[in-house]
Amino acid sequence: MESLKEAREFFEKGYLEYRPNLTIECTIFGYDKGELKILLVKNKVIRKWCLPGGFIKKTENLDDAASRITAERTGLEKLFLKQFKAFGDVGRNDALDIFDEETFIELMGFKIEGDSWLVGETVSLGFYAISDIVNASPRADYLSEDCQWFRIDALPELGFDHNEIVSEALFRMRIDLYHFPIGKNLLQPKFTLKEIKMLYEVLSGKKLNATNFPNKLISLGLLAKLDEKRSIGGHRSPTFYKFNDEVYNKALKEGLVLA
Amino acid sequence: MESLKEAREFFEKGYLEYRPNLTIECTIFGYDKGELKILLVKNKVIRKWCLPGGFIKKTENLDDAASRITAERTGLEKLFLKQFKAFGDVGRNDALDIFDEETFIELMGFKIEGDSWLVGETVSLGFYAISDIVNASPRADYLSEDCQWFRIDALPELGFDHNEIVSEALFRMRIDLYHFPIGKNLLQPKFTLKEIKMLYEVLSGKKLNATNFPNKLISLGLLAKLDEKRSIGGHRSPTFYKFNDEVYNKALKEGLVLA
Repeated sequence: MESLKEAREFFEKGYLEYRPNLTIECTIFGYDKGELKILLVKNKVIRKWCLPGGFIKKTENLDDAASRITAERTGLEKLFLKQFKAFGDVGRNDALDIFDEETFIELMGFKIEGDSWLVGETVSLGFYAISDIVNASPRADYLSEDCQWFRIDALPELGFDHNEIVSEALFRMRIDLYHFPIGKNLLQPKFTLKEIKMLYEVLSGKKLNATNFPNKLISLGLLAKLDEKRSIGGHRSPTFYKFNDEVYNKALKEGLVLA
Repeated sequence: MESLKEAREFFEKGYLEYRPNLTIECTIFGYDKGELKILLVKNKVIRKWCLPGGFIKKTENLDDAASRITAERTGLEKLFLKQFKAFGDVGRNDALDIFDEETFIELMGFKIEGDSWLVGETVSLGFYAISDIVNASPRADYLSEDCQWFRIDALPELGFDHNEIVSEALFRMRIDLYHFPIGKNLLQPKFTLKEIKMLYEVLSGKKLNATNFPNKLISLGLLAKLDEKRSIGGHRSPTFYKFNDEVYNKALKEGLVLA
């Protein structure tokens, strides 16, 4: 939500539009030449950095809600997006108990009349997405005062149980790397084997073998060699590759084994 | 719930004890010498076979709720249990619209006064478990009229979206096989390489190499060779192995790569 009016409507009548007691939290990984980052928003109410998230509309499937939420924060659609775990430990919303009515009015600019539909414990469905950073345009909404990329190895202490959610997202994303193709929208349409190896090294946090790793991708049929080289002069100019769309899309659905 | 009294209390006052609009559905895989099965309950209300499931207590973490639900149906505790996906497509509860008040009274033995807390769409958290079949004792509860193992390749048409949940559980379990050790409570404490290979073949639905596969388990340190053979006479008696508990438990937490 982008304005005081929208925020107020959400707090007062959100139960008409959204499913109660259930949110989505998105760990949006950003890939930027050799660095892995995640996108965080500074929550106005608890004044801590948190994962971007939101409620799910009653008319919306879960994946669609996650796509909407990641698109709202990054400006990008059709990211690689996966649900990985629900978080529902008893007491995980206690962070919200710290503020009283006066503080709320001061922060948000309005008062909630009567009982809020937002009371009660909330379960969060964890999704992770992989985005490129260059084309993303991070945007805070009315409930947050800032929105920024943070290096995964230099995260601040997050609100709620969001540090745990990030750890689990990283753990699960790194398992999924072995089973789903990745790279569309992260690499240029034509890329060298060195470039795709670097992408996988950054995402997995592991050094990969310069020969075995690309050979595995090639033997799975994921990469197609182009009759074109990156011109860096001389006979060592690296050959360009592109993804084989058919194999790539099939593997996205059916999975593969890359090890 | 085991009795009319408990069922009635659940329908009338369950909102005091349970989280609303959220359930757990468990795909319990059963391993029985060369066959993969799953446990189904025949739902009294919609009269179809369904996954065993239930609501989550307000005082309970999600994993604990799933453990309780699987233990209630199988009689077994501490199964290999993993959350894999939440299911929340719009309209997934429409199957419940088929029956009127009279049918409900006839089936359940009581009438619901006033509005039920059970109306509204429900999101289901999918967990899968792996159990052995020999030691399990499947039990129906008051809401179901039967509880039985079915071969995975001969499932009936299930209620709600439970066929989809089973497909996803199978897909995810087969990915997890590459990343988490499995076999405790499914094999005897001492087993041969042929026996653990058969377990993995049944779970994965794939033929495995008789030498490479066990060698991989051994090289990961998961198996310890015993100075003891299964006596089948002659020099071909196969050697017994057991799991290395320390490596096994660490890998359960931190994951591994088995490929």
